Amino acid sequence: MTQHSHQTAPTQFVDAAGVRFAYRRFGKSGGVPLVFNMHFTGTMDHWDPAVTDGLVHDREVILFDNAGISSSSGEVPNSIEEMAANAAAFIRAVGLTQVDVLGFSLGGLVAQELALAEPELVRRLILLGTGPRSGEGMASLTPEAQKIFGATYDEPDHLWLNVFFARSEKSQAAGREYLKRFRFRTEDRDPEVSDKVAPAQIEALAKWGVPRENPYDYLKALHQPTLVVNGGADVIIYSVNSFILQQHIPNAQLILYPDANHGSQYQYPDLFVRHVSTFLDG
Amino acid sequence: MTQHSHQTAPTQFVDAAGVRFAYRRFGKSGGVPLVFNMHFTGTMDHWDPAVTDGLVHDREVILFDNAGISSSSGEVPNSIEEMAANAAAFIRAVGLTQVDVLGFSLGGLVAQELALAEPELVRRLILLGTGPRSGEGMASLTPEAQKIFGATYDEPDHLWLNVFFARSEKSQAAGREYLKRFRFRTEDRDPEVSDKVAPAQIEALAKWGVPRENPYDYLKALHQPTLVVNGGADVIIYSVNSFILQQHIPNAQLILYPDANHGSQYQYPDLFVRHVSTFLDG
Repeated sequence: MTQHSHQTAPTQFVDAAGVRFAYRRFGKSGGVPLVFNMHFTGTMDHWDPAVTDGLVHDREVILFDNAGISSSSGEVPNSIEEMAANAAAFIRAVGLTQVDVLGFSLGGLVAQELALAEPELVRRLILLGTGPRSGEGMASLTPEAQKIFGATYDEPDHLWLNVFFARSEKSQAAGREYLKRFRFRTEDRDPEVSDKVAPAQIEALAKWGVPRENPYDYLKALHQPTLVVNGGADVIIYSVNSFILQQHIPNAQLILYPDANHGSQYQYPDLFVRHVSTFLDG
Repeated sequence: MTQHSHQTAPTQFVDAAGVRFAYRRFGKSGGVPLVFNMHFTGTMDHWDPAVTDGLVHDREVILFDNAGISSSSGEVPNSIEEMAANAAAFIRAVGLTQVDVLGFSLGGLVAQELALAEPELVRRLILLGTGPRSGEGMASLTPEAQKIFGATYDEPDHLWLNVFFARSEKSQAAGREYLKRFRFRTEDRDPEVSDKVAPAQIEALAKWGVPRENPYDYLKALHQPTLVVNGGADVIIYSVNSFILQQHIPNAQLILYPDANHGSQYQYPDLFVRHVSTFLDG
């Protein structure tokens, strides 16, 4: 397999579950690949090359658009469970029988469901900026998230400075570096998602987040070694939800980064890559 | 400086603040040394050589008995603040003007006070299995701690299996390995602490833990880069206290390990050494 990078990996396609999935894979093949699950309204191009290329020295990285997102065909389902079923269909369609799974925010919900539904398929789990079913402030977008996603920005990309980074000058400066990096790839970029994506994803998020009895019991069935990572000051999915995940998943390690909001892995990409590599090699 | 190890470093003595302090230093000199602050009723010999020797490749490690403990003279003060003042006097007496400070449990309280009182002396801070002033369950020993410390054990060392390790077979097996390691040093060991130590330390702990208004505000003044580490299931100082520390210290990273109680760094010494090295080098 050629040694492509985040910037050069061609977008490929594979058919499964009635969907034509767009994906990119790059890095060192032969081991257990790491499959990335994207956040609310994001495409393959919202991942940070400092993270993806940082991880490919020892493993293969696979990015994909789930059903209905950007370059993939189909419709965005209105439940996390169906998104996870689509992800499993995609993973099998590219010929894999065991993967590590990373999920960020909404993608972290999909990753949990995927790991629960497919315990043989998922070896290790990385949950970024995410939370449990019925997590705190997860029945709808948080007030902060409603304000941030509802605002208009002179430069549309600047939305992500508020979603992913804290208000400190240091965090905002890290955010501007992230915005540069995620624009490095100039050819064969994913189109932005259609207007149909956000409503379906919000419906799925709301169903996941609705209060229920003993909401965290399901986490006991997550037997994969799990790494939970977030910023200590996440206003999109409150940081306490990462603590709750660690407390209820039987084999979970938690890392919270300082002065960081929802996208802490983009604020500390080198440190995050070290922590993830240590975890996946452990 | 000779390259001693945990096992071979001679016990040395230095006079300061009316106390003859016993200490051992070993590892790579020339950088910023890491000073270890011990837990309730512990001596220099309760540190795990897998941790101390694991860290000396890139730095010097300094162990010491604070005032009134084991090989050191003097009395154990009945406040954390006085313990921290004694620690500062010791550090200056061995000729150091800047150190990194690690504190475990009671030692973590001392480390916080030391970092607050001596911001120039303390460069970076590592807080293990510890909590804030007025932390949850910290007004006295927790019910679990009272039971564990109040019980009798066929082998006295087995106390530490219950204090430091979780109930799972895997954690207990790690505990038995720790007990072997902390007995490796056979010559020039510290004597056990006197009967006067526990009451004074409990009084200091209780004063620290007493409920007060806005108890966590003081943490805003801790400007050192800080690494907070604990097991996710600490019954001696509840794990939520580590989360509280991270939430209130301006520049703190949190790591919680899975299936681990109060002594998680002894359950995962290699991983802990990697995390600490990454933090101190960062």
